[in-house]
This record gives sequence, C-alpha cells and structure tokens, in this order.
Amino acid sequence: MLAVLFDSSLRVVAKHPAPAAAQGEALLRVRQVGVCSTDIEITKGYMGFRGVLGHEFVATVEASPDRSLLGKRVVGEINCVCGTCDMCQAGLSNHCRNRTVLGIAGRDGCFAELCTLPVANLHVLPANVDDDQAVFVEPLAAAIQVTKQVRMDARSFVTVIGGGRLGLLVAQVVNNLGVPVRVIGRDAAKLSLCERWQIRSRHVKDIQPRQDQDVVIDCTGSADGLELAMRLVRPRGTLVLKSTFVPTRPVDLAPLVVNEINLVGSRCGPFAAAIALLADRAVDVASLISRRFKLAEAPAAIEHAQQPGVLKVLMRP
Amino acid sequence: MLAVLFDSSLRVVAKHPAPAAAQGEALLRVRQVGVCSTDIEITKGYMGFRGVLGHEFVATVEASPDRSLLGKRVVGEINCVCGTCDMCQAGLSNHCRNRTVLGIAGRDGCFAELCTLPVANLHVLPANVDDDQAVFVEPLAAAIQVTKQVRMDARSFVTVIGGGRLGLLVAQVVNNLGVPVRVIGRDAAKLSLCERWQIRSRHVKDIQPRQDQDVVIDCTGSADGLELAMRLVRPRGTLVLKSTFVPTRPVDLAPLVVNEINLVGSRCGPFAAAIALLADRAVDVASLISRRFKLAEAPAAIEHAQQPGVLKVLMRP
Repeated sequence: MLAVLFDSSLRVVAKHPAPAAAQGEALLRVRQVGVCSTDIEITKGYMGFRGVLGHEFVATVEASPDRSLLGKRVVGEINCVCGTCDMCQAGLSNHCRNRTVLGIAGRDGCFAELCTLPVANLHVLPANVDDDQAVFVEPLAAAIQVTKQVRMDARSFVTVIGGGRLGLLVAQVVNNLGVPVRVIGRDAAKLSLCERWQIRSRHVKDIQPRQDQDVVIDCTGSADGLELAMRLVRPRGTLVLKSTFVPTRPVDLAPLVVNEINLVGSRCGPFAAAIALLADRAVDVASLISRRFKLAEAPAAIEHAQQPGVLKVLMRP
Repeated sequence: MLAVLFDSSLRVVAKHPAPAAAQGEALLRVRQVGVCSTDIEITKGYMGFRGVLGHEFVATVEASPDRSLLGKRVVGEINCVCGTCDMCQAGLSNHCRNRTVLGIAGRDGCFAELCTLPVANLHVLPANVDDDQAVFVEPLAAAIQVTKQVRMDARSFVTVIGGGRLGLLVAQVVNNLGVPVRVIGRDAAKLSLCERWQIRSRHVKDIQPRQDQDVVIDCTGSADGLELAMRLVRPRGTLVLKSTFVPTRPVDLAPLVVNEINLVGSRCGPFAAAIALLADRAVDVASLISRRFKLAEAPAAIEHAQQPGVLKVLMRP
C-alpha cells in the first residue's frame, strides 16, 4: 500500500506492507487525513518517532472483530492503552503507562491507505458529519479538553494566543460556552476568520499586556508565546499550555512564582463531544481548510502546512 | 543608623539616614534578621532592587499610630499594599498592583537598625515564640502557602525537591498534615535533619524517577530541579514551583503538556498560621540555624549563606 514514512527523512513508499490488525483491532481504509503541527514537529525529530506518520483521519472499517462496524465511517482516538496500569485503572487511560499513539509513539499512523486501531478507540460518525469535518474531530477534541480542565464562564476574561489551526478551534469552543474570548495572532488573514465568528482578535503587535486575563491559552508552543502569556495572565490566573512546547532558549519562569500562576498542560480530549459539536454545526471547520493534496504528495503537503497563512492541509489516498 | 545596602554592590553603611514612618506605618527597631535565598539573588541582580536589603526580621515597635503596639515584639508581612486596586478588592492583596515589598521591590528592607512597615502588616508575637523562631515566620508562611494552594492528604504521594532552608520548612509543614512526604537533596548533612523529624529523604543520585508522585514541590529554583520534578510527578499530577526560578538554559516543557501537569507557582503565605505552628512547637526551626553574625558583617554573612551545607544565617544589629 501507499504510505508516508518518517525514518530520519520523510518519504512516500508506494509498496509498504499493509498493516495486520492485532486482537481487538480493526483494519481501517483511510478516506482522508489532516496534517497537524505535531506531524511537522515529528519530521524535525520530536518524540524520536519512526514509522508511518499521521493521526488525524476519517476511515471506513474494512475488517473488525465487531462485525457491526464493517463498512462504517469512523474516526479513532489515537492513544492505544493497556487497561491495566495504574493510570488506566484510575480512569486516566489517555495517560496509560504502556500506551502507543497513532503516528506519534510506537504505532504506525494514518498517512497510508490502511491503518489499524483497537475497536474500542473507534467512533462511528453520524451521516451529517462529512469527511472534511471528520478529520477535525481529533484536534477539536484536544481543543475541548481545555474546557474540561479549566473552569470558565461568562465573567471570565480569556485570551487565546495563536491564530493557527489549534488556536482557532480552541477560540470557537470557548466562545461557544458564552465566554468572552479574544485571539492574539500574527497573521491578519487567519485572524479575519474570527470576525466571521464574532470573536474578538488582535494582532500581537497591537497588544499591551496588563496581566488582567483570568485564563490565557497558549496555542503557539513557543518561548515567545509563553512569555506573552505570562504578561497577559492576571495574578492567580490560569495559563494553559495547549501545544507541545519545543524550547529554543531559556524562558524566565519567575513570573509564574511571583504571580502564583496556575499553569495547566493540556493534550488529548473527548471525541464524542467533538463529534457532537460538529454534528450541531457549532464549530466552523470548513473555513480552516487551506488546501488539499494527494497522499502521494505528502512531502509537499507537509511543507505547505508550514507556510505563513496556511491553516489545515488535507490529503486523500 | 547601620544599614546593609545593595546598589550594584553590597555594602555596610554606618551612618545611613534613619527611615521615616509614613502615615499608617510603624517605626521598628530590628532585633534580628535572617538571610534568604532571595537576598542572595538580589545581590546578583534579581528584581533590579536598590536600597536596604532584607525581609526576614523580628523587631520591637518604636513608634506607631496604634499606641497599643508600642514596645511590642513583632514580625511583619512584607507586601505593602494599596487596598484599592482590583487585586486588593478581590482579596488577593499579596498581588496588589501597586505593592512595594520590604527589601525586594520599591521599599527599604530590614537589614538595618530601624525599618518601617504599615501597622496593618504587623503581627505581635506570643511570648513563647522567641527571636530565633520569629525570623522564620516569613519563610514558614511561604511554606504553608503550598498547603493552601494544593490539596494533599494521607493518600497523596508528595516529594519535596531541595533540602535547603525552604525545602526543609515545606517538608515539615506537609508532614504535619499527615501527608507522606519525601525530601530529595544533594547534601547529606542537611538531609540528616529529616531523620530527626521522621521524614524520609533521599540523595538525588539515588533517585529513579517513575512519574508516580501526586505532588512534587520544587524548592530549588533551578533548571535541574524543574526537570527532575517533571520526571517525578505523575500524569495529571501537581508540580509546585516554590522558589523564584532563575533560568540558565532552555528547559523542555513538553512533559507538562504530554502529561497534563498542573503547575502551581507559590509565593508568600499566611503569617498567623506560621506563628501558630511555631508557638505549638510543630515545626523545628532551631535546627536550621547554621551561624550567627553581626549586621556589620553582612557581606560575610551573605557569602556564608551560599556555602554548601549552610542553612539559615542570622544577623543582629
């Protein structure tokens, strides 16, 4: 099968062996995939991952021990867990000690014609969530996770830093809760989407940080983003790190201590809630699609996803 | 009066002008002071502070608008606040937008024969808290603050990183709650105090981090300490930054995101609770006193406080 491999370099392999579904797993025929910033980081060495890339997908079930799933259109949670470690037993299976993660850690991903996942990870899609929306379920779930970890209400002042793929999803999710939210970014074209959603936005160069925000959600994963977040959040406020943080230089964390900030790391979220938001048309993801590629063009697609102004890049086998 | 000044260099001034108490303030005759790591950092440029150093003290009230305080032995909260800003109005006056901080920010400190503080900041000491104990009220309050911010109980696994002045106070406070706590440090002599208090301790080189601690309290303020903390704390656990963090190199914060850690910055705490613990003999501070100096010997005292194995250094005018 066609597959996109990363093993110190990124390459498209035309005749990669098809994966074999292990016990309890389904074989999935990939319909469409999305390129995430984590994929980009992996091609730069993050996680030391080797194998088939990709974790955002929609697929059709081709084989499954649960025959009722056959032919169904599904998305899948990316953490494959043991069910028996202390984290799984504590109900924190996304933090399973023995987990593999689709296309990120110890498990081939979905940038291929076929992939496998445990049946327990699959969510059947309703008919009114199409393939374009479906590839957003995984990042939208991650966006929703912020609202599961941090209490926000109509009286909270909330700022999202980063007007990219993830930031614009987080902003929409928070806005849906009736919470006044503002997005700070660097790209006017991306920020213009906020206007359509009636979400306030500001260019980063127009910001005068006053340490007055109750919650600041950093979706940049950068030293600049974290430093700006610390200058925006109020004393005893909450700072959410939503993106994997790749350090490039020392960051002075003294403001976290002096202002007694509560910093919350945030990763994967609830798929069912994300599917429900998409089915309800509560979140606009169509506007986030920048360009479509064929899977065979993956290197060009991943390169394109890193260009200024580009949001979500999709690929089809 | 005699005063210890820092203005790009540290020096003892024999005839420094005595401070004048502003409205609402008391004039205090200093009885004894303690040297804190923050003082040491200030002499290295932290906060850009210029003026009389020092914030840990016990004093006698020499002049006061509240005449009932005259002659009383007192300690004093170090944040001098406006009472009218949004933080003060929200009950977070330690985070007052307009605060000055004794010997740390915008206000001369207590390494002098006399100093001033608002009357509202003063706490009269009971007779059974002597001058040696009293200089520990401020750092002990800071240690107690951790337990006000983070829920811990007898089922929690808690590790304190740093067997220094602050770490040993934090460990005793947590231990007093009936919480199983372990101290990790680098100095065998300091750690041996833990045995006396029936607190477990380990040398850092004997540690095999397993990400299994519910709460990790970093009292080192170092990149090494923060990195060790991230390897000790369990997924979804809590990491407390108790010391001002002075960055020396980039720290990879990705584990905070991947493991969804809750990081809590922690600064000043409740004086009344600290005085009560000392009055109850619930915390051993006498064992933490390493050496006594005269105030006129302040440069030597501050130098000594930075030597390996040294805990609290005290000075008297």
